[in-house]
Amino acid sequence: MQQDARYMNMAIELARAGSGQTSPNPLVGAVIVKNGTVAGMGAHLRAGEPHAEVHALRMAGNLAKDATLYVTLEPCCHVGKTPPCSEAVIQAGISRVVVAALDPNPQVAGGGVEKLRSAGLEVIIGVEEEKAKQLNEVFFHYIQTKRPFVTLKTASTLDGKIATHTGHSKWITGEAARREVHELRRIHDAILIGSGTVLADDPALTARVDGKAWGKQPVRVILDRRLRTPLTAQVVNDRCAETWIVTSTASSEQQRQALVQKGVSVIAVDGELTVEKVLEVLGDRGITSLLVEGGAEINGAFLQAKAIQKMISYVSLKLIGGRNAPTIFGGEGIASMEEALHLIQTQIEHIGTEDIRITGYPQWK
Amino acid sequence: MQQDARYMNMAIELARAGSGQTSPNPLVGAVIVKNGTVAGMGAHLRAGEPHAEVHALRMAGNLAKDATLYVTLEPCCHVGKTPPCSEAVIQAGISRVVVAALDPNPQVAGGGVEKLRSAGLEVIIGVEEEKAKQLNEVFFHYIQTKRPFVTLKTASTLDGKIATHTGHSKWITGEAARREVHELRRIHDAILIGSGTVLADDPALTARVDGKAWGKQPVRVILDRRLRTPLTAQVVNDRCAETWIVTSTASSEQQRQALVQKGVSVIAVDGELTVEKVLEVLGDRGITSLLVEGGAEINGAFLQAKAIQKMISYVSLKLIGGRNAPTIFGGEGIASMEEALHLIQTQIEHIGTEDIRITGYPQWK
Repeated sequence: MQQDARYMNMAIELARAGSGQTSPNPLVGAVIVKNGTVAGMGAHLRAGEPHAEVHALRMAGNLAKDATLYVTLEPCCHVGKTPPCSEAVIQAGISRVVVAALDPNPQVAGGGVEKLRSAGLEVIIGVEEEKAKQLNEVFFHYIQTKRPFVTLKTASTLDGKIATHTGHSKWITGEAARREVHELRRIHDAILIGSGTVLADDPALTARVDGKAWGKQPVRVILDRRLRTPLTAQVVNDRCAETWIVTSTASSEQQRQALVQKGVSVIAVDGELTVEKVLEVLGDRGITSLLVEGGAEINGAFLQAKAIQKMISYVSLKLIGGRNAPTIFGGEGIASMEEALHLIQTQIEHIGTEDIRITGYPQWK
Repeated sequence: MQQDARYMNMAIELARAGSGQTSPNPLVGAVIVKNGTVAGMGAHLRAGEPHAEVHALRMAGNLAKDATLYVTLEPCCHVGKTPPCSEAVIQAGISRVVVAALDPNPQVAGGGVEKLRSAGLEVIIGVEEEKAKQLNEVFFHYIQTKRPFVTLKTASTLDGKIATHTGHSKWITGEAARREVHELRRIHDAILIGSGTVLADDPALTARVDGKAWGKQPVRVILDRRLRTPLTAQVVNDRCAETWIVTSTASSEQQRQALVQKGVSVIAVDGELTVEKVLEVLGDRGITSLLVEGGAEINGAFLQAKAIQKMISYVSLKLIGGRNAPTIFGGEGIASMEEALHLIQTQIEHIGTEDIRITGYPQWK
């Protein structure tokens, strides 16, 4: 039914309002329609606060009786921080429920729908399902893998360089693109860079607007095998956001203590510091989304480990040349074009006048 | 007047029909309008054949009397391979002439218009002037500088590589982009590559459709300081198009003779083989447009020499990685981002499903 798609799209737009602030919960939107009139709307905005359905039911009040509920994700059937939504939906007298996507957790999927159907409600599944899944690509990935959804963000010139041959990189991209990166940081649970970038640029890695920290700040994760991060680094001292340094148990105990005393969390892993292990410790600590901001060797390691779910490439409409100027990926790279990693579902947009943004999903074989 | 722009756009579209086949002449289109009705149309299609105005006047016949002529470039006033158009326009009884752009040759500019005005015709100049100039960007550049208009065409992955670290590059881009490159070749007077690319890939460098040579073939120019091009190379043997090897007078006389005997033109320049000298010898030999197809060191040399008028970059939506994989430009490159070369008037388009094309004009300082 055309109307179902229309109201589901409305629910998806509502869900987006919580972008970057619901982790570890998904983005969910809900719309209640009675006799062709919108009677209630809701979105999940923060973990621990009511789910979208509950907000919408409250707004609808008595109008919920015999109404249709549109919800972007299957209503939950378990008691978590809030009571199960399927129960609330039944009690409010909703007669028809349209769901975009089932719960991604295989142990739970279908449970909420089952409960609604048992209570005699009509349930339709799969309306605008792809859109709803993409909306929660992070949540779906995390629930299914227990690892953060990795977005690799790069900024390079049209000739593929991330700095000049002298290492100068201020700025590759224009203001509009750099503003967007702060929004990207805000919607991620954590940002990851290597200690090489800390040493080279001493970045703050916070989400800022007009130079000021703004919104929820992501955890700053530094990959630092040999614990080279200086005690004077911004990320160690500014207390603007949490800083986690992931290192090897072979690194200096004394340096670890010094960093901990500064308020930094030091996570030491046994043996080689692989991308897989880093994602495991971050997943275990509840990081559902990770924005990797390079340098080249970190990017190359994530590529080699096939640990990139999404690419966001800012390409500036500039040329800088230089056979020794660094490019996006260090590491060895592939040998033959047949092994090239294809991006799918690509989108291209002009960002301001100086850059373009290319977004896509690596299609791992 | 709105109608003037409308008919001038029609004339510009007509002019495009001759794309790639009028060199060294410009693309010109003409439309004759009498009482709000199109009475004649014409385009210049090949050097030595009638100019656009003449075709349009012939089509209009007696209707040309008291009609308006729209022409994308100032009618000529000198006798070349064909009689002067301004004379023909006057004799046909045209009463009003609308011109998009004046002749770019400073010695001739305004002469045709002057002649028309002296004969009592009303002349309007500058309608859709920018479009008309862009249509003939090659011709304007060549007339004013006596050097070919250089278009640098590159094909790289999203991570800026032109081959894998082993040198494998078949294929960086998809079929649709590769088809376009053959069209690009067709519309250029010459293609330039370095002898390194001849040695590595032994390309045919012809304009092909479905594998067969198609349309006017560009001259193949090989930059080959040390005359390394093998006598067995395709460009030396296939006779599908002219091959010019530009070398230094210091290269082997014997090898030069052997190449000449194969039908290749060898152009030896004194002293260092610079980009400036190469453009000078090509310009002197009537090459108005040059498509540079790399490799990296050739591209880098043209960048260093500030000898690129237009960039056409095919970027494939693939990643290959590798710190040692070659990128678009060899050479030293700039040191600081302030020196970066900006592209202006950029256009971006999806080409097939695998690639994007970014076109722009370097803004040399």
